[in-house]
Amino acid sequence: MSTTALESLKTIDRELQLLSKTVSLLHWDQETYMPEDGIDMRSEQISLLSGMIHERATSTEVGDLLSELGADDEHPAGGDTVPADEKSLVRCVYRDYRREQKLPAALVRRFATVTSKGQSVWAKAREHNNFAMFRDHLAEIIDLNRERAACFGYDEHPYDALLDEYEPDMKASEVKTVFDQLQKDLVPIAEKIAAASQVDDAFLHREYPVDGQRAFSMHVLQAIGWPFSRGRLDESAHPFTTDIGSLDVRLTTRYAPDFLNPALFGTIHEAGHGLYELGVDPRYHGSSLASGTSLGIHESQSRTWENMIGRSREFWQFFYPELLRTFPAVLEDIDLDRFYRGINKVEASFIRVEADEVTYSLHIMLRFRLELALIEGSLNVDDLPDAWRSMSKELLGIVPDKDSDGVLQDIHWSMGAMGYFPTYALGNLFGAQFYSTMETQIPDMREQVASGVFENILAWQRQHIHGHGRAKTARELVMDISGRPLDARFFTEYLRTKYSEVYGL
Amino acid sequence: MSTTALESLKTIDRELQLLSKTVSLLHWDQETYMPEDGIDMRSEQISLLSGMIHERATSTEVGDLLSELGADDEHPAGGDTVPADEKSLVRCVYRDYRREQKLPAALVRRFATVTSKGQSVWAKAREHNNFAMFRDHLAEIIDLNRERAACFGYDEHPYDALLDEYEPDMKASEVKTVFDQLQKDLVPIAEKIAAASQVDDAFLHREYPVDGQRAFSMHVLQAIGWPFSRGRLDESAHPFTTDIGSLDVRLTTRYAPDFLNPALFGTIHEAGHGLYELGVDPRYHGSSLASGTSLGIHESQSRTWENMIGRSREFWQFFYPELLRTFPAVLEDIDLDRFYRGINKVEASFIRVEADEVTYSLHIMLRFRLELALIEGSLNVDDLPDAWRSMSKELLGIVPDKDSDGVLQDIHWSMGAMGYFPTYALGNLFGAQFYSTMETQIPDMREQVASGVFENILAWQRQHIHGHGRAKTARELVMDISGRPLDARFFTEYLRTKYSEVYGL
Repeated sequence: MSTTALESLKTIDRELQLLSKTVSLLHWDQETYMPEDGIDMRSEQISLLSGMIHERATSTEVGDLLSELGADDEHPAGGDTVPADEKSLVRCVYRDYRREQKLPAALVRRFATVTSKGQSVWAKAREHNNFAMFRDHLAEIIDLNRERAACFGYDEHPYDALLDEYEPDMKASEVKTVFDQLQKDLVPIAEKIAAASQVDDAFLHREYPVDGQRAFSMHVLQAIGWPFSRGRLDESAHPFTTDIGSLDVRLTTRYAPDFLNPALFGTIHEAGHGLYELGVDPRYHGSSLASGTSLGIHESQSRTWENMIGRSREFWQFFYPELLRTFPAVLEDIDLDRFYRGINKVEASFIRVEADEVTYSLHIMLRFRLELALIEGSLNVDDLPDAWRSMSKELLGIVPDKDSDGVLQDIHWSMGAMGYFPTYALGNLFGAQFYSTMETQIPDMREQVASGVFENILAWQRQHIHGHGRAKTARELVMDISGRPLDARFFTEYLRTKYSEVYGL
Repeated sequence: MSTTALESLKTIDRELQLLSKTVSLLHWDQETYMPEDGIDMRSEQISLLSGMIHERATSTEVGDLLSELGADDEHPAGGDTVPADEKSLVRCVYRDYRREQKLPAALVRRFATVTSKGQSVWAKAREHNNFAMFRDHLAEIIDLNRERAACFGYDEHPYDALLDEYEPDMKASEVKTVFDQLQKDLVPIAEKIAAASQVDDAFLHREYPVDGQRAFSMHVLQAIGWPFSRGRLDESAHPFTTDIGSLDVRLTTRYAPDFLNPALFGTIHEAGHGLYELGVDPRYHGSSLASGTSLGIHESQSRTWENMIGRSREFWQFFYPELLRTFPAVLEDIDLDRFYRGINKVEASFIRVEADEVTYSLHIMLRFRLELALIEGSLNVDDLPDAWRSMSKELLGIVPDKDSDGVLQDIHWSMGAMGYFPTYALGNLFGAQFYSTMETQIPDMREQVASGVFENILAWQRQHIHGHGRAKTARELVMDISGRPLDARFFTEYLRTKYSEVYGL
């Protein structure tokens, strides 16, 4: 009886995954290759398919199968008839069913249409540095998110209902506690750095021909083990990673002709996300379990690759010679030590994706606080650009001259993603905690990186993190790997050690 | 009552179009950018969506709406309640419904899965020049097509049921009659050419750096009026055109480093298809009418652009200076006259897509005869490579050394398309007949081409052909434009005039 119900549920789950990843392709294409006039019909396509997925995922058929399997709010992984190794699938399907089922189909469609169009409107608004062009779309996206939060329901704050989509079971109050602690720990580090003699990174803003950047990005991907038979690297206004299939994971990056960092570290960052997706155990392929377990955990992998590995001295011991070969004239006066210190310069800046490891989390706190205010209704969208500027002054000590360097810099809100930003900073914390264990278990890890050996790191990540997909929750991963709950001190300790050396504190 | 039924039908039609064009994106991506390991899940995606489209398109809901509108085999455009300007939509929906409804969903899914996988199997088989690698897939595709023909039903020959998909209302016997006549008329022309002093085209096989070819292809597209805000040009093993939306039409081409023709004329050819799709009247956008009315008519547009315009002396009076600027060293000893004669060299060859205008139709006759035999069962798939060689000997007088130059050269069968090839030769005939009228109505057309003015040609095509989409049938177009039915003599007369001059006959 239950076996049949389980098989039926798995068939539906697979079909829904196939359709969801078709929507991912529609999105990926929209951001990479779609001709601009295709946007209206593309929005309709995404809206139609999203509506169909929602309808199927919340159908009485799925509800009845879940009931038959004994899944309810008390037993989200189903009853005794569900085999132990299938419980995590039932748990994930039940979770997604419960969330989706609370949204009316019309709201799902409207949200898909508005956010799909919003992305191209945002891109134009950012290009023209004109918040007014984006204002109405954003206002509608905020309203729709407030409506969604009301549908999902919440105990403490409407924001919790949105955050839960990206970081299951985490609450705004928890984030606030962690962020307040993190801010407190970061301040003395940032202050010491500000008082130290400054690092030169002007050379990163020289002219770096885009062709060379493209070739070097591909070189790094190849060297760290990115499998091009299962993945791609393309270009888009805002870098992202998406999986079109369990064996088809795509990264994007962007090349700035006069700044090396965005593509260099953006590519490594996205590769961290992509390797997570590609590392999921094949037995989960095509199911709800074939994905990262939370965005915070996802971000822990991207930021580990981007920063802990990709901004380490050992990484550049290995890669700097090739970078010099790629840009011999540009970098002829820069030795490895200057390069290493340059890419680790700490300084308050406007653009989140280009921020250093120390100040990055402050960018996130800014967005988190503004989102909270927008969602609870204490901040009006018309006051948002001003609020951004004053919050930037308060947290970073600087104010952007133009909205394209401020409130218009991120794609997230245009995609409808509110409650997403905190996961970036949580990723730093998860990442540092995992990294600490990995360093114990691979004692010569740094020497391996210096020799261009990355397969043991990747194997460790696959065994402990990637392979589990959504079968383990974020809390379970943290406990299983480090033996204790999330603790921000791993991250601040990592920063203290690294930057004492970089800045000779 | 009928207004409501019509509105409901139009809503469903639009949704089905959105889904079909999503499948087009899945296909386009598979041929252009998909990482190779993505193929299995991609096949599943295409199969799932194709099945869903089939299910909806053949639902009792659609059947009931069509009945309510009075549509049946006697009145395919519906009854008196359907407004005159909506009859063509009802006719197209009814036609597609009747065809699709005859196929069981399981067969549709299996066909989609097999043909999706077949394409990558074919690509590998061609690459390795190994028919055995493709044999089993092809055998299954033939069986499935025989099964499909049986489901569709036919009066004379099972091939008619397949041909009807691409060239509505045309029968194999008609094609045979036209082809026999065409072959008879072509022979004296080809014989005269063979007896004349030969043209040199060796320079077309020099080394043409791919970057230059890419830039020149883009230059030509821009000059003839290809709108990049509504279209793209990419690369694939077999060039094709697909519309992802009414304002998103994509061409592909392929660049051979040692042969100028494939990309040069392939790009112009595909642009001809793409301009047709983009020229459909906006009031048909997103409906079943927003497409070419038959593949023969489609091919008439691509071959008009590729050959009648793109291989004309006037075209190269305008474009040759830019080609010289692109490849100054490669072409320094070739003047316009030698170039023009070279690109119009007539000679029996192996590869259809590289064939000249005179022998091209013989390649089509070869495929048509083999397809007829495969579908009626008088030819076994194991005997196909031999049959290809002997038919090639008979029609073209030459035999390919390897199957990649013979039976493996075309993608069509791997996509499941049988009954498709004849439309290529029909396109030559339709095209010449239309061109003859256009020359009368735009008397200085050749001078315009020589000056790089293409907008009047395009406007004429839009007014008389493109704009109507599927609202007029092929037969109606031919009658309306030229005042008489399809007549092969327009084409042979065009060839006789042109090649008398090229070869000084």
